[in-house]
Amino acid sequence: MPRYAIGLDYGTNSCRSLLVDLDSGEELGSTVYPYPSGTLGILTDPSDPNVARQNPQDYLHGLVEIIRGAIAQTKEKRPDFKPEEVIGIGVDTTGSTPIPVNAEGAPLGVLPKFKDNLNAQVWLWKDHTAHAEAAAITEKAAEMRPEYLAKCGGIYSSEWWWSKIWRCLKVDPEVFEAAHSWVEHCDWIPAVLTGTTDPAQMSRGICSAGHKAMFCAEWGGLPDKEFLASLDPKLAELRDRLYNEAVSADTRAGGLTAEWATKLGLAPGTAVAVGAFDAHMGAVGSGVKKGTLTKILGTSTCDITVWPDSEDLADIPGLCGVVDGSVLPGCYGIEAGQSAVGDIFLWFVNHLVPDSYGATQDEKFINMEAELAKLKPGETGLLALDWNNGNRTILVDVRLTGLILGQTLHTQAHEIYRALIEATAFGALTIIKRMEEYGVAVEEVVNTGGLAVKNATLMQIYADIIGRPLKVAASDQTCALGAAIFGAISSGEIGLSEAQANVCRMRERVYEPIPENQAIYERLYGLYRTLHDAFGTSEWSGKIDNVMKELISIRQEQRQG
Amino acid sequence: MPRYAIGLDYGTNSCRSLLVDLDSGEELGSTVYPYPSGTLGILTDPSDPNVARQNPQDYLHGLVEIIRGAIAQTKEKRPDFKPEEVIGIGVDTTGSTPIPVNAEGAPLGVLPKFKDNLNAQVWLWKDHTAHAEAAAITEKAAEMRPEYLAKCGGIYSSEWWWSKIWRCLKVDPEVFEAAHSWVEHCDWIPAVLTGTTDPAQMSRGICSAGHKAMFCAEWGGLPDKEFLASLDPKLAELRDRLYNEAVSADTRAGGLTAEWATKLGLAPGTAVAVGAFDAHMGAVGSGVKKGTLTKILGTSTCDITVWPDSEDLADIPGLCGVVDGSVLPGCYGIEAGQSAVGDIFLWFVNHLVPDSYGATQDEKFINMEAELAKLKPGETGLLALDWNNGNRTILVDVRLTGLILGQTLHTQAHEIYRALIEATAFGALTIIKRMEEYGVAVEEVVNTGGLAVKNATLMQIYADIIGRPLKVAASDQTCALGAAIFGAISSGEIGLSEAQANVCRMRERVYEPIPENQAIYERLYGLYRTLHDAFGTSEWSGKIDNVMKELISIRQEQRQG
Repeated sequence: MPRYAIGLDYGTNSCRSLLVDLDSGEELGSTVYPYPSGTLGILTDPSDPNVARQNPQDYLHGLVEIIRGAIAQTKEKRPDFKPEEVIGIGVDTTGSTPIPVNAEGAPLGVLPKFKDNLNAQVWLWKDHTAHAEAAAITEKAAEMRPEYLAKCGGIYSSEWWWSKIWRCLKVDPEVFEAAHSWVEHCDWIPAVLTGTTDPAQMSRGICSAGHKAMFCAEWGGLPDKEFLASLDPKLAELRDRLYNEAVSADTRAGGLTAEWATKLGLAPGTAVAVGAFDAHMGAVGSGVKKGTLTKILGTSTCDITVWPDSEDLADIPGLCGVVDGSVLPGCYGIEAGQSAVGDIFLWFVNHLVPDSYGATQDEKFINMEAELAKLKPGETGLLALDWNNGNRTILVDVRLTGLILGQTLHTQAHEIYRALIEATAFGALTIIKRMEEYGVAVEEVVNTGGLAVKNATLMQIYADIIGRPLKVAASDQTCALGAAIFGAISSGEIGLSEAQANVCRMRERVYEPIPENQAIYERLYGLYRTLHDAFGTSEWSGKIDNVMKELISIRQEQRQG
Repeated sequence: MPRYAIGLDYGTNSCRSLLVDLDSGEELGSTVYPYPSGTLGILTDPSDPNVARQNPQDYLHGLVEIIRGAIAQTKEKRPDFKPEEVIGIGVDTTGSTPIPVNAEGAPLGVLPKFKDNLNAQVWLWKDHTAHAEAAAITEKAAEMRPEYLAKCGGIYSSEWWWSKIWRCLKVDPEVFEAAHSWVEHCDWIPAVLTGTTDPAQMSRGICSAGHKAMFCAEWGGLPDKEFLASLDPKLAELRDRLYNEAVSADTRAGGLTAEWATKLGLAPGTAVAVGAFDAHMGAVGSGVKKGTLTKILGTSTCDITVWPDSEDLADIPGLCGVVDGSVLPGCYGIEAGQSAVGDIFLWFVNHLVPDSYGATQDEKFINMEAELAKLKPGETGLLALDWNNGNRTILVDVRLTGLILGQTLHTQAHEIYRALIEATAFGALTIIKRMEEYGVAVEEVVNTGGLAVKNATLMQIYADIIGRPLKVAASDQTCALGAAIFGAISSGEIGLSEAQANVCRMRERVYEPIPENQAIYERLYGLYRTLHDAFGTSEWSGKIDNVMKELISIRQEQRQG
């Protein structure tokens, strides 16, 4: 009898499904649903560029569309497909993306009273309104509970759970009071599918809890009430209405309700796994293991690796977190990331690229890529910082911004695009260097996500800058594939290693660093690192008058050489 | 009997004429001739963005077109116009723009042998190929002849006479050997009109000689042969084929030849004045006097003021030069400038502004201006450096490049345009501050040039940043008007003060600084100055991690306030 699993991947602008054959690894069905609300699915506030919210209704509409779509495609290929052959459903989402819910588990944003209130909607991962709260949490934790910070890179981020909830309390007490509890997006979808309406009964994943909410078994779960009360007594009260347990994604959250089974065309009682973040499941879908760094290259980037929890591991400053079980059971999940990668390219193409490159966004990207591929490293004379959306790793600071320098009166858009690609690659290298400084060797880099698959020029630049061979996972949907793997294993009918062995594959093409490019990029990285440290850290002090001149020298060498 | 004069203004992309009534000040005729060669009149080299040359033939074709055009327009308004009523012709050009010529005064670039050789063409002011030579001249002069440097701001520029000629000698000895002499563009046009073919007989202006060729009466004219030989013995030999005297532009270079009189429709023997640079003559056409700074706002910017040569004046580091008689007879002419202003805006609109702002360059400018005018200072969160073409004053360094920082994922093109306008205004303020530090008070700023006339939004931003009322000269053609004034006075038939009083007027609208904008811009200037000193000087050392954060704070205050 065939065994299938379904993975659901909720991204920043859309959600998608993947229905996979757990024995052959064949991907039989996949449907995308772009969120209809706001701009590309994001609710914004013109008076504050830090605001990024989502409409929870979009998630529910998408749920039906993408599962039914995947099943319909599967039936075309496998006319004998039976719903009960789907042994499990797994879910991944962005995060930290907390949702305020009432006592019945309903998001406040869908209630008539709050439907037009941005603060009652979903607080999307890239919402940066809570930077003051993040700074205050960091300060207070450094003073009272340094152990909390040690596990999350030394700095608590405005993108994370407590910052956002506290921000809501400060700017919109009415919403805060109306929220009986808060649930991560990745925990809310399994709760919906399994009919779990009481927030206290909803299964909470260790991935989101550990990486974003300072949850750790060492100190008994969430931050203690004394600490939370030092921020605001209402946060301490809220703790009682949150959760005391958080589990890894191989755990079964429950069975699919009859109502959802009918809506989706699946069997009632189908196992639904505990949710986790997209990047973590993407790493699993890419075959992550010790020594392998998985990079998910999308609008933002997540860099994930694992380390056996039986071996010593230092606290690594600036990393988003080290959480036991957040990626694979029995391993520490180590997470890092860049707050914007594809988003920077989208910003650039949509706001600063003239129509001489093409009439559509796609044409502009394609033509710019063709032009920039002709250039040698350093030939643009440009250098950029990849901070248009702040810096998540290793500076953990949203109050940083983009920078481009080296422009002449001849600089063209595709040259700037190249500099922006390079900047994101320098950011990626900075993360790897930090991991290795603290003992986590990176022997292999496996890439996944849209950019890894579609943009060969970018991948070669990344290989030249990162200085390691870059592989690309075979699946176009590694996050959904990882979710499907967890859906499957949560059923108890298949083990993790068997599932990974059956479905995780690599593409043939490996991007090898080109030595002469690597040599130039090592020099450019030195300049990037100077700007990175000078603009991004309070420790740095020194001179930078060499930067423009060295860029000009390298440009001259490369143009003439 | 009416008295007229003609001024000829040779700019970077075109030349233009002005025929003015010396009694009423009425401007009766003006014609523009865009140089047909290269890109917008500039010959470039794709392998080296520093190359900027011009075709000397363009100047001659233009000469006929623009004078005949102005006369034709005058005749329409004044049917009784007689050629002999034009009492003089004056000429201004860009500079330092040296032309290699043969023993008959012919530019090498027009000879069949050299017509396709970029090095035999005119070396336009903005050619930056000679930066290494400029650095070597500065070093050698600092060692052997510090007095040479003291008069030109302490640093000899790659845009200047000797750097370019030496560069030619190094990269193209054949052209150098074929050049019997070299002539500034502003000296070559009067030589043509007066039929002076022997380079030794051509009148040389003190403006170009003093500001660009280190000519000074104190040390007997051009740099001495011992100094030149220390650079290259061939430069010392060349000195004998250059000139020993340089005079102010009120001097008569000669009379118009019969042949040119016929070609142009003027009277033979009409006085032709010695040439000078556009900015210097533009200052005269704008009514420059002690305490008045004249800013010519164009593709680049020149800032000119005067100081009586009977009063003490300190050497001012970083200024392009202080030369007795270069602007007005009896005064030191003090010159500063920015290597690119309008050129930066043109670069931006042509390379980085999407068609959503309009289909043409003009529409894009107009729509961006309308959008940016709605913003408060600091609201963009952006800060830029105005160095896309290097920094002429006060850093005198072409090996500097542009910089933009503060970008988010929401930054739009018109916001960057505003930041670029602001950057050029901060650069302008830096020049004024330097003059005042050395005792040259700036009580009044008179602006002229296309940007001053056409862009009211830019002028208000300039007023807010510079913190002084900004006036705008009435004439659209102050450079040509200044040239006409000198043409007139070189005839001896009218004096300087009478001519200036008759023809120099101001527009009614004065741009007054708005105090609340000024306060924000003082904070932003502090950040600009930090970046300016950090990237631009070897003396600076310190921290810059405050820059992005203060920009964000100011942005927040301004958006919410």
